[in-house]
Amino acid sequence: MLLARMFNALDRLRAPRPVSAHCDLPCGVYDPAQARVEAESIKAIMEKFNASDDPYFRDRATLIKEQRAEECNHHLDVLWYQYFQPAHLEKYPQLHELFWSTKKLTSQAKRANDVAIADQLLAKINEIADIFWETKKA
Amino acid sequence: MLLARMFNALDRLRAPRPVSAHCDLPCGVYDPAQARVEAESIKAIMEKFNASDDPYFRDRATLIKEQRAEECNHHLDVLWYQYFQPAHLEKYPQLHELFWSTKKLTSQAKRANDVAIADQLLAKINEIADIFWETKKA
Amino acid sequence: MLLARMFNALDRLRAPRPVSAHCDLPCGVYDPAQARVEAESIKAIMEKFNASDDPYFRDRATLIKEQRAEECNHHLDVLWYQYFQPAHLEKYPQLHELFWSTKKLTSQAKRANDVAIADQLLAKINEIADIFWETKKA
Amino acid sequence: MLLARMFNALDRLRAPRPVSAHCDLPCGVYDPAQARVEAESIKAIMEKFNASDDPYFRDRATLIKEQRAEECNHHLDVLWYQYFQPAHLEKYPQLHELFWSTKKLTSQAKRANDVAIADQLLAKINEIADIFWETKKA
Amino acid sequence: MLLARMFNALDRLRAPRPVSAHCDLPCGVYDPAQARVEAESIKAIMEKFNASDDPYFRDRATLIKEQRAEECNHHLDVLWYQYFQPAHLEKYPQLHELFWSTKKLTSQAKRANDVAIADQLLAKINEIADIFWETKKA
Amino acid sequence: MLLARMFNALDRLRAPRPVSAHCDLPCGVYDPAQARVEAESIKAIMEKFNASDDPYFRDRATLIKEQRAEECNHHLDVLWYQYFQPAHLEKYPQLHELFWSTKKLTSQAKRANDVAIADQLLAKINEIADIFWETKKA
Repeated sequence: MLLARMFNALDRLRAPRPVSAHCDLPCGVYDPAQARVEAESIKAIMEKFNASDDPYFRDRATLIKEQRAEECNHHLDVLWYQYFQPAHLEKYPQLHELFWSTKKLTSQAKRANDVAIADQLLAKINEIADIFWETKKA
Repeated sequence: MLLARMFNALDRLRAPRPVSAHCDLPCGVYDPAQARVEAESIKAIMEKFNASDDPYFRDRATLIKEQRAEECNHHLDVLWYQYFQPAHLEKYPQLHELFWSTKKLTSQAKRANDVAIADQLLAKINEIADIFWETKKA
Repeated sequence: MLLARMFNALDRLRAPRPVSAHCDLPCGVYDPAQARVEAESIKAIMEKFNASDDPYFRDRATLIKEQRAEECNHHLDVLWYQYFQPAHLEKYPQLHELFWSTKKLTSQAKRANDVAIADQLLAKINEIADIFWETKKA
Repeated sequence: MLLARMFNALDRLRAPRPVSAHCDLPCGVYDPAQARVEAESIKAIMEKFNASDDPYFRDRATLIKEQRAEECNHHLDVLWYQYFQPAHLEKYPQLHELFWSTKKLTSQAKRANDVAIADQLLAKINEIADIFWETKKA
Repeated sequence: MLLARMFNALDRLRAPRPVSAHCDLPCGVYDPAQARVEAESIKAIMEKFNASDDPYFRDRATLIKEQRAEECNHHLDVLWYQYFQPAHLEKYPQLHELFWSTKKLTSQAKRANDVAIADQLLAKINEIADIFWETKKA
Repeated sequence: MLLARMFNALDRLRAPRPVSAHCDLPCGVYDPAQARVEAESIKAIMEKFNASDDPYFRDRATLIKEQRAEECNHHLDVLWYQYFQPAHLEKYPQLHELFWSTKKLTSQAKRANDVAIADQLLAKINEIADIFWETKKA
């Protein structure tokens, strides 16, 4: 799977792929990287929260993480109900459940500072990304 | 430069780079891809605007493009005043002017549907991205 | 734009019954009426758009309807991934598909002024509401 | 007054009433339930805050309650300056003072976790709702 | 009244006055200039709308004016329910009606491009400002 | 400089100056007072934070200050990339560095409650304001 992701990256360099924006025109431009970005932020914030014993810093970390989790959910949502179509669901019937559990992880990521949650979130986003890029090839 | 960008992409696969989020904790996670995403959307919207003669569709395209341009400016802004530090400015003294002109392109992108503006915006964002990734190697 | 507005303008653009709030504390307070409200607005806006030949009024109707559709989707989203739990999915396996198609209707409602779309959206929301209230009784 | 509210509720079930949205087209669709929803959330959050001794949970409760209070004020505001007209003020001269004191309660609800404040807020919203539904009958 | 306003301005230079922000901490910092700013923008946008026959420009003007009107209403709202206290209402019993009619002007400013509306809005804001600065002296 | 600022204030009374709004139509209406307002709020919040030993109050102060700092940065940003033009940069080559360091102060203002930071921020905003009003005279 790493090899596939490498080739996707190279593909994107040769012919820059459309990227995600919350558009709904529709502009036809999507990319799971936006959700991944927020998940990476969430993980970084959790790590810094755990490494700090300054209550003021922790306060701000909590506030900012809440926002990143919201953003992450938003980018996932756009992919789910705007990008994916019924034909995709036939090929990947697990999509609904996958998005649902991934979005639930954004809620969990707000409620705790357990980095394992962030890692699960990133893993799920990569699953979604793999399916997404396969549909782009099709 | 294409080669450098390819290697950056591969680097990011082996050791996923931090990506951008509007964090200011700081979470230490930045990536020009977020700005590029919005610029790609802007270009797609302009193309669809120009290809359509439906005033209702064009209305929505205008509204949505205004939002993407705002988002693009926001992501650029975060890179400029949160990521870049005085040490970077010594090595890349053109940074302020580069960000300023790129942000001005987001304004121009709102005011017209000339795809050349979107192409200029994308080119400038790639300039910023090149500098960004060089600083990451340093 | 206010932080709640900036961070979450999105919350806004973004009941003796318990009602829905975008809470995710979780506050345990949900109600499909919030989504229904926005759908009623969407329908009213479509009707007024169709009844008017004033391009200025129609411009504003388009802009405002885009926002209501976004809000509608947001309220649906909160119900789907925050309220409903795996146990509910066992009893109502159609939930994912139901939410997915309902959210897709909010997209369609942006793209046209066909009141039939609004009626379908309201009907789907009522389906969701029926299931929701059954789970509350259980 | 409870009887009136029961009948209003039954009315709304038989012929769903228009509900509130921040529209200002105007879409002509209003309902005090939106403000009540947020007040119910505020009360639930206060109760959970008081029942918890986890500073992290309390942090999030504070942040989320601030947002709900803002939303509550927003919905009240729309009713006050968009729905109510001079003719209503003649019949209900207490409206300005009622809205003013209710909005001030949303501020108080941010500043403390005294459930009595939330109860006062809900009571005031019900007063507003009673007047609102009377004007709808007129 | 001009003389009073001049002296207020000089006062503000000698001992910089607190200025308005939507704070509700409360931070104790308010100024009607924020509402006036948005009203000046609204007027400028109306003038440009009327001077242009470019439907694309007019589209953007409509969208942007809707936002400024919202912002104007928000700043007025903060003054009304956060700054003013019952003691002020005793001295200036016209406050509620004054804010109500001023906020209604922000709605009217969305619905038309009649500069007279913007002038009325500015005049009302100045009335509010005069009372505000009198209360500051008291 | 105080004298110049006094006369600017009087000028603004005789011929009300355009004020700032995040417009980008462009509406041509700008004023550094909007950024100053937020900076004044930030300072007031820091002072109240330091004067209080109530962790709940301090929590809210932190949340609200984060928002004001964001707003402050936004108003600065609009001035920088929307108002100022290449001709201004020729006369005031220090503008980019001035805005950059001022925006960095909004970040610092989030991360600590050192009133000296707020004072520096206010001083920088006044520098920007002085240049702004000079360009208006030119």
